[in-house]
Parts: sequence; C-alpha cells; structure tokens
Amino acid sequence: MSQHAARHPEASESHVSFPAPRAFASDNWSGAHPEVLEAIAAANTGHVAAYGGDPYTERFRELARRLFGEESEAFPVFNGTGANVLALQAALPRWGAVICARTAHINTDEAGAPEKTGGLKLFGIDTPDGKLTPELVAHEAWGYGSEHRSQPLAVSISQVTELGTVYTPSEIRALSEQAHELGMVLHVDGSRIANAAAHLGVSLAEAAAGADLLSLGGTKNGLLGAEAVIVLRDGAAAGIPFLRKIDLQLASKMRFISAQLVALYDGDLWLRSASRANELAQRLASGIRSLESEIEGVRIAQPVESNAVFVELPPEVAERARAAFTFGAWPTQPGLYRLMCSFDTAEADIEGLLAAISGSPATTAAE
Amino acid sequence: MSQHAARHPEASESHVSFPAPRAFASDNWSGAHPEVLEAIAAANTGHVAAYGGDPYTERFRELARRLFGEESEAFPVFNGTGANVLALQAALPRWGAVICARTAHINTDEAGAPEKTGGLKLFGIDTPDGKLTPELVAHEAWGYGSEHRSQPLAVSISQVTELGTVYTPSEIRALSEQAHELGMVLHVDGSRIANAAAHLGVSLAEAAAGADLLSLGGTKNGLLGAEAVIVLRDGAAAGIPFLRKIDLQLASKMRFISAQLVALYDGDLWLRSASRANELAQRLASGIRSLESEIEGVRIAQPVESNAVFVELPPEVAERARAAFTFGAWPTQPGLYRLMCSFDTAEADIEGLLAAISGSPATTAAE
Amino acid sequence: MSQHAARHPEASESHVSFPAPRAFASDNWSGAHPEVLEAIAAANTGHVAAYGGDPYTERFRELARRLFGEESEAFPVFNGTGANVLALQAALPRWGAVICARTAHINTDEAGAPEKTGGLKLFGIDTPDGKLTPELVAHEAWGYGSEHRSQPLAVSISQVTELGTVYTPSEIRALSEQAHELGMVLHVDGSRIANAAAHLGVSLAEAAAGADLLSLGGTKNGLLGAEAVIVLRDGAAAGIPFLRKIDLQLASKMRFISAQLVALYDGDLWLRSASRANELAQRLASGIRSLESEIEGVRIAQPVESNAVFVELPPEVAERARAAFTFGAWPTQPGLYRLMCSFDTAEADIEGLLAAISGSPATTAAE
Amino acid sequence: MSQHAARHPEASESHVSFPAPRAFASDNWSGAHPEVLEAIAAANTGHVAAYGGDPYTERFRELARRLFGEESEAFPVFNGTGANVLALQAALPRWGAVICARTAHINTDEAGAPEKTGGLKLFGIDTPDGKLTPELVAHEAWGYGSEHRSQPLAVSISQVTELGTVYTPSEIRALSEQAHELGMVLHVDGSRIANAAAHLGVSLAEAAAGADLLSLGGTKNGLLGAEAVIVLRDGAAAGIPFLRKIDLQLASKMRFISAQLVALYDGDLWLRSASRANELAQRLASGIRSLESEIEGVRIAQPVESNAVFVELPPEVAERARAAFTFGAWPTQPGLYRLMCSFDTAEADIEGLLAAISGSPATTAAE
Repeated sequence: MSQHAARHPEASESHVSFPAPRAFASDNWSGAHPEVLEAIAAANTGHVAAYGGDPYTERFRELARRLFGEESEAFPVFNGTGANVLALQAALPRWGAVICARTAHINTDEAGAPEKTGGLKLFGIDTPDGKLTPELVAHEAWGYGSEHRSQPLAVSISQVTELGTVYTPSEIRALSEQAHELGMVLHVDGSRIANAAAHLGVSLAEAAAGADLLSLGGTKNGLLGAEAVIVLRDGAAAGIPFLRKIDLQLASKMRFISAQLVALYDGDLWLRSASRANELAQRLASGIRSLESEIEGVRIAQPVESNAVFVELPPEVAERARAAFTFGAWPTQPGLYRLMCSFDTAEADIEGLLAAISGSPATTAAE
Repeated sequence: MSQHAARHPEASESHVSFPAPRAFASDNWSGAHPEVLEAIAAANTGHVAAYGGDPYTERFRELARRLFGEESEAFPVFNGTGANVLALQAALPRWGAVICARTAHINTDEAGAPEKTGGLKLFGIDTPDGKLTPELVAHEAWGYGSEHRSQPLAVSISQVTELGTVYTPSEIRALSEQAHELGMVLHVDGSRIANAAAHLGVSLAEAAAGADLLSLGGTKNGLLGAEAVIVLRDGAAAGIPFLRKIDLQLASKMRFISAQLVALYDGDLWLRSASRANELAQRLASGIRSLESEIEGVRIAQPVESNAVFVELPPEVAERARAAFTFGAWPTQPGLYRLMCSFDTAEADIEGLLAAISGSPATTAAE
Repeated sequence: MSQHAARHPEASESHVSFPAPRAFASDNWSGAHPEVLEAIAAANTGHVAAYGGDPYTERFRELARRLFGEESEAFPVFNGTGANVLALQAALPRWGAVICARTAHINTDEAGAPEKTGGLKLFGIDTPDGKLTPELVAHEAWGYGSEHRSQPLAVSISQVTELGTVYTPSEIRALSEQAHELGMVLHVDGSRIANAAAHLGVSLAEAAAGADLLSLGGTKNGLLGAEAVIVLRDGAAAGIPFLRKIDLQLASKMRFISAQLVALYDGDLWLRSASRANELAQRLASGIRSLESEIEGVRIAQPVESNAVFVELPPEVAERARAAFTFGAWPTQPGLYRLMCSFDTAEADIEGLLAAISGSPATTAAE
Repeated sequence: MSQHAARHPEASESHVSFPAPRAFASDNWSGAHPEVLEAIAAANTGHVAAYGGDPYTERFRELARRLFGEESEAFPVFNGTGANVLALQAALPRWGAVICARTAHINTDEAGAPEKTGGLKLFGIDTPDGKLTPELVAHEAWGYGSEHRSQPLAVSISQVTELGTVYTPSEIRALSEQAHELGMVLHVDGSRIANAAAHLGVSLAEAAAGADLLSLGGTKNGLLGAEAVIVLRDGAAAGIPFLRKIDLQLASKMRFISAQLVALYDGDLWLRSASRANELAQRLASGIRSLESEIEGVRIAQPVESNAVFVELPPEVAERARAAFTFGAWPTQPGLYRLMCSFDTAEADIEGLLAAISGSPATTAAE
C-alpha cells in the first residue's frame, strides 16, 4: 500500500494547526488529536483495576448513559470491526442473520469476520446510495420459522454510510419500526456517527434514534484507537462481557481506551472535529462541482453529507490528482474515487487538491 | 472487582519514581511508562498509511528481525489473548489441537477464545509448576492420523508461566525438538517474556529458543496496550494478515501500537523494567521467607523466578495484608495468593506489604 | 408444513409402479427405490469395520475412481448440506470466500451452515436463471491479497441449478478455466447431477467437467439418505477425513451409506431414475405450455432442463392445483411455483396435475 | 484399520441367529437388526413431507413423550456426535463451557467437534471409572460471572460411560441437583443408554433421571444409523430446529431415520438387544475372571455393568486373542483392551474368545 502523502507546508487554520503530511485516503490515516494525547497522559496515575474496573471506564459508562439514555450500557473495545461483530453477535442467537446494504463495511471490508468470528450470516442488499429502506429490507426479511433459512433477526445500517450518505432520524426510525415489528433489532455501525450528527445538526443519540445497538466510533475522529459498543435498549443484547473477551476485544489496561472516548465525547471535541471535516468536504465538493463543466468526466457521484466526497474522475485527472495527494479508487466502480476529509485536513489541502484536479499551476505553488 | 490500592507516599527510588497508588494485583494494574507516552506523541506526525503501512510498523518489523532473526515476521496486535489465538490459529489447520499446561492462560483465562474464536481444541496437562516437559507432552501427543482425535499439532508454553516459573533455554529446546519430531509447532505465550529473559540473563530470542511462534508481550511491562505475534520460523504459520483482520486484531492506526513496541524493545526499556520488577519480587520473597518461621502457615509456594510471588497465607494474615494492598487469591487452591510486582512497584511498597503480612506497626507507619 | 399429497390410484407405468400418494413438492418427498432397499439388506452381513473401513465403502471408492478418474477420492456423508459444507471447507483456508449464485442452495436453503459451521463467507451474485458465467463471477473475483476482503477462493455452482437449469459441459469448463487462472477451485453442488447428466446425455463426470470438487447427490434420486464428497483433482482439498468427523458427517455404520451409493451408481439406476423424472417434467411442461394460451397468467418461467418445472400461476389456478397435489410457492417471487418430478412420479400424476391446472373435470376423474 | 473378524460358524442362539463374521471391536461393527430393516421397508410408502413433516417422525415424537414425559421433545439426527454437539450447543449460550469426564466421548473421540463445530469449551476431569461425582464436578464449577473464565453451564455424563460403567439413578440425580443449583443443565450422552437401563433394570427415562437433555442412542444397538436429541425439560434448550440444520443433522427423508427409532423403542427391541449384549459381556467377564488365577497379568479392569469388558492382557495373550477376534487396545493405558459385545454376539463367540485368551485347544476347534 502506497504511503504517499503530499508534503504541504503546515496548515495555518484559524483554530488549530496539525502536522503535515496529509492525504485524502482515509480518516484513519490521520493521527490523534492533541487533546486525546493529553487525556491519556492524565489517566496514567498509578495502579487501577484492569479490564474495566477503573474510574476512567466508569466515567465513560456514565457519559454514555448521559448521551444515550439511562438504559444504555457501554462497552469499550479496540476497533470498529470488533464493535460490529461483538454487537451483532451479542444481539443474535446462533441461528441469526443480518440484513445490510451490500456495500456495508461488515459485508465488504471486514474480511468475513462477521461470518467467521461472529458466526453470523449476512444478507447484502443492493442500494443506490448505501442506504437501506424498509422496502429494501423487505426483500430479505422473510422466512421466519423456516429451519432452512438463516433467520433475519437484525438490520445493520451504517451512519454515515460507506458512500458518505447520511440517514435522517426519521429514516432510521422507519427502519427501527419495521425491524421491531418483525422481531429484529436495529444496529448502527457508527464509526462516523459524529459526522452524521454534525451534518444533521442533532445529538449523537438522535443520529441513531430508534436503534438498539450502536458501534460508537472514535478512531476515525481523532482517537489513537478506541470504539465502543453501546447497547441502547435494555435486553437488546446478552453476554457482552463474556463475548467481548471471546472476541479478543477486552483491553487489560482499559483506562487508556476509555480515557480516549471520554476525551472525545465528554465535551464537544467530537463535534468540533467532525464539523470541521464535514465542512472541508463541502468546500471540496463545491470546488469540484465548479470544475464539472470545465473538465469532461468529473462528477460528484453521491450526495455529500459527511466528510466523504465520491467523485468520478477521468484517468488522466485521477492520475495527476493522486500524484499530489494519496486517495483511493473505489473497488467496484472503475473511475470512481473517494476523497476523505479528516479533523486535521487543512484548507490548503483542499485548495491543493482542487488545483491538482483542475491541472492549474496552483498545484505547484502549493508545494 | 475491587479497585482498592494502598495509598502510599510517592516512592522515591534511586532511578525513577512513579505515581501512587499501587497494588500487587497484577502487572496490568500499572500504567504506562513515561517513555512510552513520549513515543506515542512522537508518532503523531500527520497522515501515514493505515493498517500497518506506516513507518513505525516498518521499524518494528525491522527490529523484530534484528531481535529474533532475519526469518522472523512481526504482526502487532491489540492484546495477549489476540496474539495467542492468532498465532495458534495461523499455525494449525482446522483439525488441529494444542497441548498446553492445564494452568495455561489460553486454557484458564481466555474465556474459551482459543476454542470459540480460534476453532482450536486444547489438551490441558496437569503440572506441578506450570511447566511442560517432553514426558508430560507425551501424554497427549498421540493419535496422529485418527479421524476421531483432534490432531495435536502444537505445543504451547508460557514463558513466564502462570505460576511465575521460567523455562531454561535448554528446557524449551527439548520441547521444541520433541514437537518438531512429531510434526508439531512450538508456541510461546510470552506476555512476560521480558521477565523471563531478565531472570535468565539471556536475550529475548534465547528466552524462546527453538520456538516457532511467539506471542510477544508488552502491556504487562509498561505499555498502554500492544502485543505482537512473531513468526520465528519461515512457514510456521500461514495467512496471518488475513487472520489478524478476521480475529479483530487489525489496528487501523497501527502506528500507535507499533510505536509502543518500538519504545519498549528498541533499547533496554524492556530489560530495565522487567529487571526492576523481578528484583522487587525477589526482595518480597526474601522478606516473606524470613517470616515463614515466625508465622505458621506462611510459605512461598513456587520458585520465584520472575515478577510473581506465590505465597500461602493463613486467613487472618491474608485479610490484613489485603487491607493494605490489593492482591488476588488463586482460584484453584484455597489459601494461595499471587503477588505481582511491576515496573513501577516501589521499595516502600515491598516494605509496606511485608509489614502488613507480619502484622508489625510498620504497616501503620507506611500510611 | 402441510403433508397433503394427492391420493391417486397406484400408477401403472410400463416399467415400474411405485406406491401412492405422491406430490410435486420435492424429489425428497419420494421414498427409496426398491433396489436400494435390497442393497442395504444385502450389506447386512455380520461385523465389518466401522467408520468406512468396510468393503462396501471400499467398493464405492473404487466406483468413484472408475466414474470420475483415478485421481478422484470419495467420501460418503449423510446429506447434501453436509457434502457442500465439507467440500468447501476442505478446499478453502480459514480466510476463504465462495462465489455463488444468489439463489444457490448453499446461500438460501442451508440456514447459514456454510458460514456458521463451515466458517466460510459467501458472495452471492444475481442471475437470471441460477447460472453463473465468467462475466458474473468477475463481479466478485477481486481483492486478492487485501486483508480487508474475504478472499474469493472458490466458485460454487449447482448442477442442476435451483431454478432447474443445467450447465453445458463447455459452460462449466469456462468457469473452471477462469477459476483456476485466479487461483480458485470450482465446486459443483451435484445434488441433482444425475438429472443434469441425463438431460445432457453425458456421463456424470462430463456433467461436472473441469470441477475440482463435487457434492455427489443421491437422496433426491431414490436413496434413503446418502451423498458423497468427490475430490476430483488431487490436492484440491485437505484434511477431509478429519473435517468429515468435525462436521458431524462421519457415519459409524458407513456400509449402509456406501451400499446405497453403490446401488445407485454402479449400474444405470441413477440414469433410469433421473431420465424418468426428467421425461415426466418435459411432459408436464409441454402440457402446461399448451395451456398458456388458454389460461391467462399461466407461463413456464424457466427452461425445463431437468426434473423441475417452474411455472407462473394465477392465484385461483394455483389454489385448485395445490388442492389436488402438494407443491411449493417460490419464496422470492409471488405467483411462481416449483413442480418437481421424481423417479416415482406416475404418468397419471402428470395428467392429474394438468387437469387440476386447467380446471377440467379430469381432475375429479383421477381421484 | 484392520477389518479382521473371526470366521465362526453361524451362531445358533436359542432366540435368534445373526450372520457371521463377528468381532469384539465395537458395537458399531455389527449390522442392523432384521426388525429394523423391516421397519424401513414398511416406511417406504409413497410421498411424505420431507425434513420431519412425515407420520413416522410424528410417531417418534409421540413415543418420546410416552417414554420420557409429556414435556419432552424429540429431534432425530444422523449420529451420536451430531446429537451431542447439537444438544449441548442448543443448551448453552456462546460463552458456555461443559464439564465432563476427561474420558468422555465428546472430549476424546469427536475430533474436537464440540469445540470446533459447537463452539463449546470442555473442562475434562480425571475420574477412576469414567464417572463424575458432585465432588469432581466442583473442581471446575466455579468462576461464574468472571469474563475471563468460560462459564461452566453444563455437565455432560455418559450413560454407559466410555469405561463401561453405569450411573445409578441416584448418582445421576445428585449430579442433576448440583447442576441445577449452580444454574447448569445436565446432559446425558446416551449412545448406550439401553445397555444402562437393561443393567439397572429400570426404564430409559429412569436411566437418565434428572437430566435435561439426552442424546438417545440407537446405532450401537442394532440400527443402521439413527440417534436423537431428547429435550427432557421444557426450556432446557433453544433453537434446536435451526441448529439441527446448521449442524448438518437435518435429514431430508427423515422418515427413514424416525422409522428406525420407532422400531427400536416402540416395543422391547431395545431391551432385548441390550440385555442380550450385557448378558454376554457378563459371561465373558466371568470366563476371564476364572482365568485370572491361571494366567499372570490377566485382569478385569473395570466393573462390568454393560456390554463392555475392559481387561488387562499380557502381550502374548493379547496377540493370540486378537488373532482370533478383532478388538481394540485402549489408547491411554498400555496393556488394556476393550471387548464389546453386541446384540448379535453369539455364545460361541464368547467361548471362542475365552479359548483364545486361555490358549486352550478350543480356539482351534471353534474355527
């Protein structure tokens, strides 16, 4: 995998400046927010009980109840795939299946971990924009009671989706109602839920309204590495403490995971960072749109509702842009590219990328 | 789980002083070594490729080759259970079984993850001191070719064992020879291999001499949370990159895992910290031995060869000692306790604990 | 599940007559062919070694080499799902995925056993007729080497497909070539391979030409219950003896499984039975086609190439036909029905069903 | 595996005569009882619903309620390992573990299927005679609530044990009470429960009194191949219909499995056959005991309470006896052999084996 990242001068944003180099490859190419490093250092205070018996984890549990309701329970884990597999496995019996978009991270990017480690079956559904609807879900939500069919007992959606789109709260509520009527749980893969909430202008809870389980992200929004399973409704999952250990997701020095989550969510760091990334994506999309009429074949391919910009680029344009900044080609559609903004993306990066796409001399100037 | 930890004044060691409170509960109750936090901050330098395509992980891979031989391959993971399950799963076909001590961490403390997530079968063998020998291994190393018997294709030992004892290099080599003759691999659970190497006065490689796979520890020796699978012999395992993802052990911002491992092992931090913990365990054991004739029922129960002291204590002695410092009762033997020293244990802690055991006024004085 | 089956007088076919009642529900609603029962009785001759060390299993192994080539290895199992899971699991490493038609039995009718018991991931592909093509396979045959993507290392096709269609040998060979070029194996779910071979007028081997692994059916063609995994190419699978036991498919009195398979395949019973069922399906389809112009909404929906007839029926027609004979509605398409002929279907059954569909008085007469 | 079986003249028992050859290798080396073949032929009556929707399976379900109580539910499966894995998997959550004798079939002879397919962890306990007691169970029945320990939620015993011994009903009840007090279920692996009931002179239900789940054997007592999971207590297991399919144990033509079970258990065939095998084992043991004083090193090694005789034999005695009749050496104890009687063992076989052991001329005469 290429590690190319354009060498830019230090960004001089009004609010904060982050170290270069930077890329548009993924929000997990970025580092950690300084406030997070401070929180980790602050948690380094002598002995505390291991495996979550520490005050930092207790603080995160309280915070989760404050953010997501008194009923909610929070379980810090290492990474997003861990959160997804653990949440779904804990919610489903051994004979359960999960309905998801065919593009869902659990279906395409987790190497079969949901099936192989979670023991789940996935029913992937084609969607135009990464979003399920009750009509789409209905295509697979059948066969209950038949021993021949893996029982669809969960719907899993991504908020933000893998195509950068965002469910409105009422769209999620419609999926939740359908799921509950059919005896299913609704799971939200919220690795970028902060970006969704920032886009919607709602709370984190509202951005997953009606869901039973949430994989609460963190790493992609400026943590070193920390996510959590949030059980939003009492009884929606069973045995998570045991399954977290079995799924290799139980941190011994959990305080250092929990302290990151507290740093992000107990205050507005999550919102500042996500809003910033979203805003730069809008600026990038806007710049690209203005090039659509100039350069044949350049086209914004999905609604820009988060920190992702999906863009079609002609080969020569893609080539010169990727020479300036690393970013990824979408595997299932030739000519489609994903541009990810991050909490630390600089305005100059946006200008540099736009210049690279347009082929204007600004590209060189930005070096 | 109790979070009680005795409140002592800051330890004033000759070399470094670490924050209080402290306990003898486990080396994972301790925090992170300051040099490790510095290394993490130093790695926070703009965008780098995710999932291990970063220079910090590359540096760790090079370091592993330097430490364990050119053939070796290193795969950073989140935690020790993850390292063990991944290493053994990658080394064995689906029909493989693992021979281990009945007291092995994989058999007693990993919630069945090796079986449930790894798909392995374990054959646990009774031992007096947590150590396997070729004679003991032979009790289960049979039935090759029979479709009725899960095929014993790996021997897994812990270096340091769960009872605090240490294999000499020649003991490991004997197990390695036997294993290889029978077509098995030898795996070393090295969550405390630094303590073993420090005790033996040998290199890390020599402390696992003859093994095919090593779960290289880190967390228990002052990291926030980082371990690694080291494949020591070419061909000893297959598909680890895929299996690491499937086993939920692939860190997106891997640089922050690798930077910890580099901080510990590229230099002598591992040795300084492990030697310190071992030395204090010796001091503690020596103090307890001098109490054996004074207090009926106090007895060092296992050779003290690492940072663990296993001690039998009468109920009233255990009660007053545990009122001063948190430490754990051994689950399978009433009256047996485990006292763990850590890189940050202070000499005053040792004195305080000895005073608490002896019931001398010093206990009060130390507060 | 309804057990309704029309009560007809004993069929008086020219060749053989089988007991009533009969249905068009499935070829596994039929009983066993008398020759099969005789073979079982003939195998009941005192003690023989268990678990396949018996002469009947040896005979089946020899037969398989004669039918499928000297390289082939045969492993009797209990049922078709067992054969499929075992074959695919033995062919793939733990990180492997299987490309199949979305309608494949392994994807829709095995309750997630391939994922949950086999530890496999399935990539299901939409097809018009249940048949994969190299173009369709290419949609999922990518991402090799990426640890994020479950590695597509097998293509699995059904011969006959779940929609009753049949691959020509050259179609299978094209899939085989593509698979091998990409490092994949080709698996054939041959639960009805006899019907395919009979339709194509080729040998069983030719009906799976180019495949690496075959789930050889039997139960649907007149056995009590016996299938087999045939490894067609040396090295295409590993550890089947162990995995057969692990997958709960190792019969202790295997002679009674093997004797069934020998009865079916060592001679022409397979061909007689499959040809008979195919022929009656043709007759049924022909009769239905002649009704298409008469009854609005009646339509043969798939090419009739085996013992299955897929037909669209208006509700009232379906109701009266199902009152006469049990048969199933296709779950994913309202108004579509599957009519299965079996080795024991009688000509009078065909006439009776056609009369019931047409609503003619013949229906009553047949009672 | 050797298929040697002594060629004896047809046994001329008072009651029935079965075909030669015969061995003392295992009760699954024997064939099927003629009444069972008749029952299969009688079930071959036209179309019936597949997958258990047939009248033969319904009859077996009713029979199970009659034999084991109105609350009980019966699920026919293919083989004993299938029954054990299915029963335990359905009774336990994903984090459950099973306490069993170290010699238990599930622990030693099922190739790790309980772990690998069932996702269970086993805690094997050393016993002198294959039997657990509450005191022995207590060694592993601890750690409830700890996420580090696989939760012991089932006790599994074998009735008859793998060493041929039998639990009295009061012994099982004591285990049942302990299990229920601790929140565990009690499972009985009853692959030879008929032999236990015959030995005890009690009903099948009483031979498993207090258990929650029973793997009801059949194959070893004269069936071709049929076993069943019996859920004895409402709520003791969940999802068996789904799990039976997932575990590859759902027969399509289930009538042929159920008809065997009905043939065995709806009447006294089970008792006739088991009593006969037990009686011959007693006769064999008695003959061997009379040789103990004559031949140094010959010794009955376990109480003879079923159809198994465990005997120590000096090498030369074993050699000549095994030249006459095939039987197996016990893998974990040199010099120990298992002699299994079967429903079809003849008195002349006993005499022949005793003669072979004693080295008397009768051996030759019997040929």
